[in-house]
Parts: sequence; C-alpha cells; structure tokens
Amino acid sequence: MIAEIMAIGDELTSGQRLDTNTQWLSQQLEALGIEVLFHTTVGDDLEANIQVIKNALARANLVISTGGLGPTDDDLTRQALANATSTELKLDAESLEHIQRRFTMRGREMPPKNQIQAMFPVGSRIIPNPNGTAPGIDLDYSVGLHHSRFIALPGVPAEMKEMWATTVVPSLAGKGTAKKIIRHHVVKCFGVGESHMEALLPDLIKRGREPRVGITVHQATISLRITATGQTAQQCEEAIADTVQQIQAAVGDLVFGEGEQELQDVVIRDLLARGETLATVESSTSGMLAFWLGTVDTDRQAFLGGTIEMPVELVSQESVEKAAVQARSVGNATYGLALGTLTKADSADQYYVALASKDGVESISSGLAGHPEIWGPRMAKQGLDLLRKKLIG
Amino acid sequence: MIAEIMAIGDELTSGQRLDTNTQWLSQQLEALGIEVLFHTTVGDDLEANIQVIKNALARANLVISTGGLGPTDDDLTRQALANATSTELKLDAESLEHIQRRFTMRGREMPPKNQIQAMFPVGSRIIPNPNGTAPGIDLDYSVGLHHSRFIALPGVPAEMKEMWATTVVPSLAGKGTAKKIIRHHVVKCFGVGESHMEALLPDLIKRGREPRVGITVHQATISLRITATGQTAQQCEEAIADTVQQIQAAVGDLVFGEGEQELQDVVIRDLLARGETLATVESSTSGMLAFWLGTVDTDRQAFLGGTIEMPVELVSQESVEKAAVQARSVGNATYGLALGTLTKADSADQYYVALASKDGVESISSGLAGHPEIWGPRMAKQGLDLLRKKLIG
Repeated sequence: MIAEIMAIGDELTSGQRLDTNTQWLSQQLEALGIEVLFHTTVGDDLEANIQVIKNALARANLVISTGGLGPTDDDLTRQALANATSTELKLDAESLEHIQRRFTMRGREMPPKNQIQAMFPVGSRIIPNPNGTAPGIDLDYSVGLHHSRFIALPGVPAEMKEMWATTVVPSLAGKGTAKKIIRHHVVKCFGVGESHMEALLPDLIKRGREPRVGITVHQATISLRITATGQTAQQCEEAIADTVQQIQAAVGDLVFGEGEQELQDVVIRDLLARGETLATVESSTSGMLAFWLGTVDTDRQAFLGGTIEMPVELVSQESVEKAAVQARSVGNATYGLALGTLTKADSADQYYVALASKDGVESISSGLAGHPEIWGPRMAKQGLDLLRKKLIG
Repeated sequence: MIAEIMAIGDELTSGQRLDTNTQWLSQQLEALGIEVLFHTTVGDDLEANIQVIKNALARANLVISTGGLGPTDDDLTRQALANATSTELKLDAESLEHIQRRFTMRGREMPPKNQIQAMFPVGSRIIPNPNGTAPGIDLDYSVGLHHSRFIALPGVPAEMKEMWATTVVPSLAGKGTAKKIIRHHVVKCFGVGESHMEALLPDLIKRGREPRVGITVHQATISLRITATGQTAQQCEEAIADTVQQIQAAVGDLVFGEGEQELQDVVIRDLLARGETLATVESSTSGMLAFWLGTVDTDRQAFLGGTIEMPVELVSQESVEKAAVQARSVGNATYGLALGTLTKADSADQYYVALASKDGVESISSGLAGHPEIWGPRMAKQGLDLLRKKLIG
C-alpha cells in the first residue's frame, strides 16, 4: 500500500508558512505500517488541485490531505475532489446543524458562506470535527483494478490531529489496511565522510535490502537510518538489532550513539558516569563547543565551563596544545579541550584540536575547507570525538 | 511562469526529518515574482523519482529540487533526471577535479563512489558548489511548445543557499512574469509580549487590511510580517513603507530591525559603525550570548570575546555589575556586558543583566519563569537590548 500526503494552500506554496502537518501525518502512517512515497503541496487554484488529486488517486492507494476545507472562496478541496472523481456535492443536514450550533454557542449567527462546509461529494463518509466548523471527507475511488481512498482533513493542526486519532485511525485499522508494521532506528557515526562510510558498509545501503539502511549527513555527523518492515513489532526490532550489530562489526567505534544523540550528549553522559569533568577553550568557533556542551549539561556537573579566546594572530599545534593543558589546570578539570585555526596567506588553512588529560596532551589537525558553517561544526565535533574515544579507552 | 519545488529523500517522506529547504526556496521565488504552485516530495525510489520529475516538467516551467545528489546508492536525482528527459549521464572533468581537490585539502583520497557526483545529463549547465562535493545541475527541457527548466541542488542548506544566491538567482533575473507583484517585509521588535504588542497596534493586525500584517514570536523576538500586493514593485514598496512608519509611530524603539536581523546583528553593526568594542561574561546561558555575537562578528573587530564563568554559588545584582565592569577592563573594551542568574530556595528565581561603559554601570533584573530554553534567550536578548538602547542614545 502506497500513501500520499497532500497539503493545500497558497500560504504554503508561497513559503509564508512552514507545513508541519505533513511530517506529522507521515510519522503516523509509518507507525501504522503504511509506506508514504509522495508528499504534494498545491496552491489555491482549482485546476491545479483537480490535477494533483487525480495524480494522487492514480499513483497511491491512500491519500490524506490537509487544508482547503474552510468556508472562503480560496478553500477548494471539496470542489476539486468532486471534480477529480466526477461526483456531485450534496448538502448533509446533520453537518449543517453542527456548524450552526457552533456559531450559536459563541452567540453568533452562521454566515451563509459556511453552508459550503456541509457539502460533501456523493458517496463520501463524513469525518466529524468536534473542534471546528469543517468536517472531513472520506471517499473511496476506483479506476479499473486500482483502488484508492481520499481522506480530506482541515489544516488546523489541533482539529486535524483529533480527527485523525478519533475517526481516521480506527477506520484504517478496521479495514485491515495496515498489514505491515514499520519501525525506525538511527545509528549515529562520526569520523569519516559519507561515501567512505558507505564503502565500509557495502551490502547494507543497497536498495531492496531488508531492513533498509539510508545514509544522511548533517554537520559531519552521519545518520544511518534503519527501516524495518514486518508482521510484528518484535520481528522489526529483531531485524533492527541484527542490522545494528552488522554496522558495529563493520565500522567499530565510528558509531557513537543512536536516535537524536549528538557527540556532546554521549561525552557528557560518559563524563558523568565516571565522575569526571571538562573545561574548554576555543577560538574561531564563537563558543560553539561550549554552547553545545552547556546545553546538554545545564547543571555544569561535568562541563565546568569554557573560554572564548580573543583573536589570536598566530595559532600553532603547540599553542593549541598549551591552551588545552591550561584549560585543564585553570578549570581544575579532568580534561581540557582546545580548538584553534590557523589562516595562512600562502597555503591551505589548518585547524588544530588538542585534548589534555592526566596522561599528557594529544592533538590532531586537518585542512580547512569551505565556509565556517561547514568546518566550524566539524572541528568542534573532532574535539568531542577525541574526548569520546579517550573516555571509551 | 509556474514553478515547482521538489524535495527528495526517504527521511522526508517517512517523517523522520522536517523539510525546511522548500519553504526557503518558495520565499526566494516569490521575491523574484515567480509563482510557486506545487511542492513535491518523493522517497528514494528511482521509478517514483522519474515519474514526479516528468510530472513537474510537464506542469511547471521551472523546477527546483533539493537532495539526492550525494555519492551513495540512495542518491537518485541525477539518474532520475537523465531517465525522465531521455538523456545520458556524462563525466565532467572539471567537476571531478573539484571533488578530488576537496578530498586532497582534507588530506584524504577521494573514494571511487564520489566520481558519480561529477556526472551530468548531457546538455546541462553545472552549478558550482564551493562548500561541498555535489555540484548542481541546470537542464532545459521542452516538449512541443512547453518549455521547462530543471535545477537540481544539494539538500545541505548551507551549500544549497550559497549556490542559489551565487549562480541560480543571477540566471533567473528577469524571468519573473507573475501578473501581481507580492512583496514581504518583516519588522523586528523586542521588549514586550505578543498580545501587548498587538494591543499597541490594534488597526494594523486586522484581517482584510492591505497591506496585511501578521504577528509571530520566536524566543522573545516579535516579527511583524507585512505582505503587500500590487501591480508594481514600487506600489508594494510604498504601501510597505507607509505601514512600517505606522508601526514605528505606534511602538517607537521597540523596533530594532528588519528581515532576518536579530539583536546581535544590529548591536554588532552599530558597534562597528562607532569603532567601539564589547566583551561579555555570562553564567547559566552556556555561552549563548558569545555564540550569537561571535557568529555575526567572525573577524572579532567589535566583539572581542566572551567568558563563560564556572558555576557561581551566589549571584547578586552587585556581583553581575562587578562582572560587567571587569569584562570591560580585562577585555579593554568600550562596553562590558554580564549575565547571571540567582536560584533561590525560598522565593522566585531572578536573573540580572549588567552593562558597563565609560559612564559607569547599569543593570536590570527580572524573574525567571519556566525552562532555561525559554528564559535563557530572553535574558541574553535583554542584555543585547540594553546595549542597543545605549548605542542609539
């Protein structure tokens, strides 16, 4: 079963509002074991709406739309759905009464415009909206052997979510559409580039593998996204555990965590577990390292604090190592971590990362490439990773 | 001219990640007067990618995609675009050299997989990517009288945005044929809550007003979003200028800036204009203030640096004032700004913000409410706002 999620409104296509309904519905459908392959957003144009609805009904088996069910002229979902499926709109007396009642409750008379919200394509089921005036629409549609179902919900998240949970989810379960269970798990890695990582995991990233493994990178952190499909949650989880084990066997300590974890989360966790502490000093990163660490450890039990240095004329491996040792002793911390960059007129720029501990000081350096937004996080993460590896021995 | 924006990746269709590129590109196209009517998101499936690209090329004149240009097997945009337009992929030697150079700069060898990133559909223009290994693709495609153009950009926002600004925008100049011109303008304010702000501007927020004014709040910064529609850009801009004037007359120096500006941007700008400098010291905010300031002033010409204090047992108005004076003198700066919080066992927690200058020291304090994520940014912004007001006299 292939699902498509549709969002309707000029405020979305013009970029004035960020659509979060679609992400939420994607997560909900995945949890029900229904694969989402398409998202579509369309502006308030009748012809365009008819076209995208026709497309969706042809390529998906389940289409969920949000928006376009209001009472004003730019709310076109009802009409577009009727046109796309060659049906007529018909007034539903009970829905009209519900809408009128909502106005009466607020001591107002229903504007004539709102009557349109009680009109439904012939043959559709009505999805009650306890929190608003726009009921939803649930319509089956078939062409030859291809069956699909269109569910139109309002765009107001609070209304949409309650209608989803109260009426749509039971109807999806009842119809037995969710035959498969889907589970996700994310393995977080640091230390190599995306293609290098893939080379280390040749058979895992292949399409068609079960569970599926996808690879994405954000600020030098690699996420391996495992998606398992099965008959039961337990089956999915076993398959995921097996894939995680294969990843660990292949890439070893490049794996640092899972889910939403970042390097600072695991570093602070490990420091706290050992009753150890850290002080930092950094130049060129505007305190990024301290900000990350401080945001995790708001009590400052492990991350004692950081210093952002005044601009330095000349940074060297030696000076960054010295800064790490100094941060450790001034902060009276178990570890001192220092970051610094050297801009050279005549050759490639460099950055240095140094870690001081009771065992002395170790450091690494690398070339700088691109924008500070790119190398800044990478440098800060190399520092955290150096400490992480020290902590796990 | 109709535009469509496309986002590619399982991590989006599965709901694991929220797509923000599409909104950003929509805003950019609107500003160019190009109407966006469709957004499409598709998972990492070759056949589905080919279909949505064909659809988009048929119904839009300009298609901008993000994602799917990485070096791994689940990056399908290049291949799907070639298939959808019945073209072949061909190696571009210059792009390959660029990619190899990026690896060399970081002291690594290019994995063979990355060669795919130098492959382009025959006839396409290459969009350089100074910050990453994935160049973009710019391909014209016509069927009969319908002409369209497909621009494929990487999904990494920092790379995508620079490529957009540097290469794509100049190539689109003069292509906007929207009948109506739309202009947006955002006025930024700080110092009161959202409902208070609305009460100060009663006639402006009204629905149906032209230009439209919307109000949103993020981390205590209020954005007043003005949307003007007209026949010419000049007409829109005049209407916006008139509304901006009305806002300024109503709320005075609560207005600090416009557009994407934050308090740190205007503070650094004003300091640089006056040839003055700032040093900071903060506790409880994990260096947030220094991080914000340092990100604006990467050269450190105005923001000399910050210190993140080790945890303090007892903060008082006096101690924070003293810290501001000390930051100023130690840093040899025109201004010293200090932030501190006091957690009390028996009464409401407090925070203190102090500003030291040649005129002495001034400070403000306020109660702490809720989560550090709420009061942290507010406290840091109160410090910046204190300095902003000092700078404008």
